[in-house]
Amino acid sequence: MITSFSNRSVREVVQLTQKAKVRNRQGVFVVEGVKMFAEAPTEKIERVYLAKRAEKELREVYGKKLDKVFCEIVADDIFDKMSDTKTPQGILTLVKQYQYRLEDLLSSVQARKCVDKHTGRSISIMGETGRKKQLYLLVEDIQDPGNLGTIFRTGEAVGADGILMSSHTVDIYNPKTIRSTMGSVYRVPFVYTEDICGTVRELQKNNICVYAADLQAEKCYDECDYSGASAFLIGNEGNGLRQETAACADVKICIPMEGSVESLNAAVASTVLFYEAYRQRRHGQQ
Amino acid sequence: MITSFSNRSVREVVQLTQKAKVRNRQGVFVVEGVKMFAEAPTEKIERVYLAKRAEKELREVYGKKLDKVFCEIVADDIFDKMSDTKTPQGILTLVKQYQYRLEDLLSSVQARKCVDKHTGRSISIMGETGRKKQLYLLVEDIQDPGNLGTIFRTGEAVGADGILMSSHTVDIYNPKTIRSTMGSVYRVPFVYTEDICGTVRELQKNNICVYAADLQAEKCYDECDYSGASAFLIGNEGNGLRQETAACADVKICIPMEGSVESLNAAVASTVLFYEAYRQRRHGQQ
Repeated sequence: MITSFSNRSVREVVQLTQKAKVRNRQGVFVVEGVKMFAEAPTEKIERVYLAKRAEKELREVYGKKLDKVFCEIVADDIFDKMSDTKTPQGILTLVKQYQYRLEDLLSSVQARKCVDKHTGRSISIMGETGRKKQLYLLVEDIQDPGNLGTIFRTGEAVGADGILMSSHTVDIYNPKTIRSTMGSVYRVPFVYTEDICGTVRELQKNNICVYAADLQAEKCYDECDYSGASAFLIGNEGNGLRQETAACADVKICIPMEGSVESLNAAVASTVLFYEAYRQRRHGQQ
Repeated sequence: MITSFSNRSVREVVQLTQKAKVRNRQGVFVVEGVKMFAEAPTEKIERVYLAKRAEKELREVYGKKLDKVFCEIVADDIFDKMSDTKTPQGILTLVKQYQYRLEDLLSSVQARKCVDKHTGRSISIMGETGRKKQLYLLVEDIQDPGNLGTIFRTGEAVGADGILMSSHTVDIYNPKTIRSTMGSVYRVPFVYTEDICGTVRELQKNNICVYAADLQAEKCYDECDYSGASAFLIGNEGNGLRQETAACADVKICIPMEGSVESLNAAVASTVLFYEAYRQRRHGQQ
């Protein structure tokens, strides 16, 4: 049992929580809480820390999974210092980072069966070749961890195939981002790109139509047909998309707004576009 | 000029920022930054604090408005201690709280002209009497200040007539909520209610159809017609709506989700419903 704050593992976890550089050097990230442990794929788990007070209860529920991974017990007061949350649940997991490549994403989209859980109807997102019509979101320089996490969560909800991020976007492995994904970080593929326009061109080469959210656009978002392979491009919270980035897209679209609102929250704008695409696909609109 | 941290005003601002009880006793709230000052209605401003370093520049731009309100200059280091933000912009405004009543909201909706700024087309939200078809959101016990603020901002964007909140919802005057509204707090009416089902019945008496977002609902949100007077009922982040609250609504609706997503973020769910209503109204869908 770890009982000292000067223990190497304790200091390592604190560093991993606070510093992206340390996370990237070690190729892992820290997730907190029961839900994030339960949903983590076992083969991605590098190590688990359990607070002494929580060990018995967690072993009762998750004993099988805990037996398969390397597990350390930590004295309660030390555990609370390792934790980044106000009310720690007594479990902290080190997870191996994901390494997706855009070319893999683009080639790996399988003809999976898409059924509306609700109505039982199949969803028209299959192309003529039987391959799923893809749906991506590209974000440029989003800064708020909560926004990025929420975008992942919403992306999973509409069946998005990936989130592509400019290299100045906030770190997906930031503890606040991770928390806001509510587990979607394990399931939605993502790629950071140094060259967002290059990534747009890559999508276009794969017959994916790229729509840029632009306040000045003349076309409304709901006048377009997203039933084909589509990608949305969303800008930074304060400034929106760079003009040169928006210019790379196939179509510029705006989201109409009443009142004195100057712009929408980035996660909200993503939601509007994601759910319109999903609505059209669910209704089989062409 | 205020130069001491023990100055009464300084301590008052810190208390007003931190404590809802103090805010409600004095009937004011604190807003930070240039945008929030610029958008505050002059008659609602009780007092303005300017950091010495920012005075000259702010007077150049906002001299006229600053002349009309009570203004105090604060030494830079003291100002930074009064401020709740990491990089204070040097202006802090005390604003009088709003006092809306549900009956006033329900009777005051005027036949305002609603035009889609984008297409120039008029929006079909007028009833046969020439009164606007109302749009409300009711939220039950939302806890995250950022979520609530974002809901206000999105509400203004779709022309909502008010946000109605259960009494256990986070305080709208919490500094984090205020910040996330991006000024919409000045423009979207709101009411806290002790009895959310009573409020639902009040809306129903006024021929407003109430739709409850419920994961177990059989009807999809996009199978309903929101072109008439409508209100959406959204639950708490963790638990969704209470069953007894959902039972008060006219219709239960679900928002479909793929993957392993258990629920959407509350602001995201509100966005999906708000923008579907707005889309239908803009398209004149019946």
